[in-house]
Amino acid sequence: MCDHSDPGATQKVNGAAPETHVGIDTSMSLGSNGAPANGAEVRRQPHLGDTGNAGNVQPFNSRYSDFLSNVSNFKIIESTLREGEQFANAFFDTETKIKIAKALDKFGVDCIELTSPAASEQSRKDCEAICKLGLKTKVITHIRCHMDDARIAVETGVDGVDVVMGTSKFLREYSHGKDMTYITKTAIEVIQFVKSKGIEIRFSTEDSFRSDLVDLLSIYQAVDKVGVNRVGIADTVGVANPRQVYDLVRTLRGVVGCDIECHFHNDTGCAIANAYTALEAGATHVDTSVLGIGERNGIPSLGGFIARMYTADREYVMSKYNLKALREVENLVAEAVQIQVPFNNYVTGYCAFTHKAGIHAKAILANPSTYEIIRPEDFGMSRYVSIGHRLTGWNAVKSRCEQLELDLTEEQVKEATAAIKKLADVREQTMEDVDRILRNYARSIEASAA
Amino acid sequence: MCDHSDPGATQKVNGAAPETHVGIDTSMSLGSNGAPANGAEVRRQPHLGDTGNAGNVQPFNSRYSDFLSNVSNFKIIESTLREGEQFANAFFDTETKIKIAKALDKFGVDCIELTSPAASEQSRKDCEAICKLGLKTKVITHIRCHMDDARIAVETGVDGVDVVMGTSKFLREYSHGKDMTYITKTAIEVIQFVKSKGIEIRFSTEDSFRSDLVDLLSIYQAVDKVGVNRVGIADTVGVANPRQVYDLVRTLRGVVGCDIECHFHNDTGCAIANAYTALEAGATHVDTSVLGIGERNGIPSLGGFIARMYTADREYVMSKYNLKALREVENLVAEAVQIQVPFNNYVTGYCAFTHKAGIHAKAILANPSTYEIIRPEDFGMSRYVSIGHRLTGWNAVKSRCEQLELDLTEEQVKEATAAIKKLADVREQTMEDVDRILRNYARSIEASAA
Repeated sequence: MCDHSDPGATQKVNGAAPETHVGIDTSMSLGSNGAPANGAEVRRQPHLGDTGNAGNVQPFNSRYSDFLSNVSNFKIIESTLREGEQFANAFFDTETKIKIAKALDKFGVDCIELTSPAASEQSRKDCEAICKLGLKTKVITHIRCHMDDARIAVETGVDGVDVVMGTSKFLREYSHGKDMTYITKTAIEVIQFVKSKGIEIRFSTEDSFRSDLVDLLSIYQAVDKVGVNRVGIADTVGVANPRQVYDLVRTLRGVVGCDIECHFHNDTGCAIANAYTALEAGATHVDTSVLGIGERNGIPSLGGFIARMYTADREYVMSKYNLKALREVENLVAEAVQIQVPFNNYVTGYCAFTHKAGIHAKAILANPSTYEIIRPEDFGMSRYVSIGHRLTGWNAVKSRCEQLELDLTEEQVKEATAAIKKLADVREQTMEDVDRILRNYARSIEASAA
Repeated sequence: MCDHSDPGATQKVNGAAPETHVGIDTSMSLGSNGAPANGAEVRRQPHLGDTGNAGNVQPFNSRYSDFLSNVSNFKIIESTLREGEQFANAFFDTETKIKIAKALDKFGVDCIELTSPAASEQSRKDCEAICKLGLKTKVITHIRCHMDDARIAVETGVDGVDVVMGTSKFLREYSHGKDMTYITKTAIEVIQFVKSKGIEIRFSTEDSFRSDLVDLLSIYQAVDKVGVNRVGIADTVGVANPRQVYDLVRTLRGVVGCDIECHFHNDTGCAIANAYTALEAGATHVDTSVLGIGERNGIPSLGGFIARMYTADREYVMSKYNLKALREVENLVAEAVQIQVPFNNYVTGYCAFTHKAGIHAKAILANPSTYEIIRPEDFGMSRYVSIGHRLTGWNAVKSRCEQLELDLTEEQVKEATAAIKKLADVREQTMEDVDRILRNYARSIEASAA
């Protein structure tokens, strides 16, 4: 079990820095492109976050636009209130659901997906309540591919319905036991019914990467023909890898005219990369959840996916989403499901912008783009350079001396750095230890000069 | 900051299940292939973990072996004691370093990489001490591409030396300030010196994905010609995506004859997927650290990378690594750096094998392969099916009734399930709540029958 003894710990983790770190003003030395503010340099070496499809300077990004790619034109289906409710610790009451829905709306996700109203009486009521909030985001519910569920769903006031049906041999034999003919027939019936109510509909297969390719393409083509708004691919077990994803999505893109949604589980660490690669191959929608919560170890986290997309096209991401609202919704969900934000969480984890090794610290101080592809201030975060350890370098120590207004020469800073390293070999150094060493050192120099 | 109030919490997180879960014997219904033990079925529907290059049944894995791929023939360079020491919280003393080195050796990693002996006097002594342990794993140290560091490194007793030099414009201008001619000249001098001492050497560029392709290939070709054992690609800032990685590694594979190592940071969630894709393109070695600790939010975690590779070739992974030793080394490192194992950690996170939605639970009970691609028992873990919530299904409840030896008909189990769902709408259900409902229900039926 998680340690729940201090429910406030989640908040403390976010944005707080370990004690031995020097806070650095993130606006320092940043021009409008994240490169040092020295005019001519900016164009040739923009911060990577600026390299959208247009002004792309990464040697390994193609210089030419990719006809299939939706990397600069994607939508997020935020599933914290559906997939996330399947997380072991999640028991959302109505009030919490509404808070989360509002926070996601504030962040600016394109759609939110809710647990099926057929799951329980309260689930149905919650679905109705969220539909009545008047959010900018579309509200979708996720149901089994079954007329009983569809009839309940269309009465709740949702903008869209996501239906799903297992097509892999595993699920056909051990779960619902239906054959492809039956699956196709049911899917078409449900789609036509939901559309007749003027509501958007998506049809997804389940466990798509262990399904037969011909079966998959057949059913996707059939539902596309009857006017489904979106088809979905789901890596329900987390088995897919990026090159498989690219191949399947690209193939599917040639078969259907509708939108393509992708849902990836993270059991083997590929969920975010698979989502990105799917967009490269022509997918249009990606499923996320806050902190990635879901069945087992979950799906792409909203923050991690945003970090990935920001790196690919900062301008698009910044124009569409309210990045500074990320931390708030993460804290809200972490508290609701009683987990700590992981130490290594994307963007908001407490070490996401901490630099430690001497050569990293030196370069970061000269130009943050050297070791950072995300500008912390875009997310309301700060950068930290850690100095109280044996991997420290004199450039980082010099920066701290300047903050303390200690007047030391380069040689003297190097000597002080050697003293810090020596002490760090003996025991862990806090910020106070480091400051004391530096102050004592400066005082001793003043004394000997006097 | 992390909540360190309970240092034992790390241990508790691992393998412990939330209260409302039913433990399921993981050997249940598993034949030697993870499919139900009913002969004929096994060949047609093996557990996905069994699908190596040979008996591959995943529709989207190629049926034919891939000439370039090293997915079934890779080596791990475990860098907890180098990259991991650059993690914000890491201050390893000698004793801790030795414990971690031994635990990694027990797990069976191919090489361990240590902090440069030039970093500090203690780093040098620790390096010597670890070399003297007589581990099966190779011991490597990681230094700047500089003769001063190389001279110190070769005296420590290491099996290999990893050198690194920044080649991106960012690092050339804001870090070391050297041009490609100087970099190449220095690299060759260091390589020849280290080789003359009979020690293995790797040359890696830093920030490879923001370096010029022609510069990269030129220097890799030059160092390959003078007999470097391995070249390294490093995504130092975590910017690379899988298709870029595939292209670069495949291109490099055509240029050099030596081994290829890959080092990926995880800032944008692609580290594990990039490592896997690099192996597909012909890379031979992948860098990991325990729990992924390193600069900023780190690199591929040993456990996550192993999960990925296990899914691709269970037989190779099981034959080479002691998977049941994973949890031990994770707990050791989590304690040493005072972090909690993240709730969503690969394989050992407490929800990695927890199943909650009714349809998932039903299928898992019929055949674990339906929603699991990793067999928990291979890692010394257990599976849990959660039932005390509004997404529960009657199949999971039936399984619990059988464990409690309650004699209920299918109809009666369904009625009891409805009761659990109704109560779960009101408040969170513990295992005790669920058991009480079931027992009372069974008793009331007995009473009315009497």
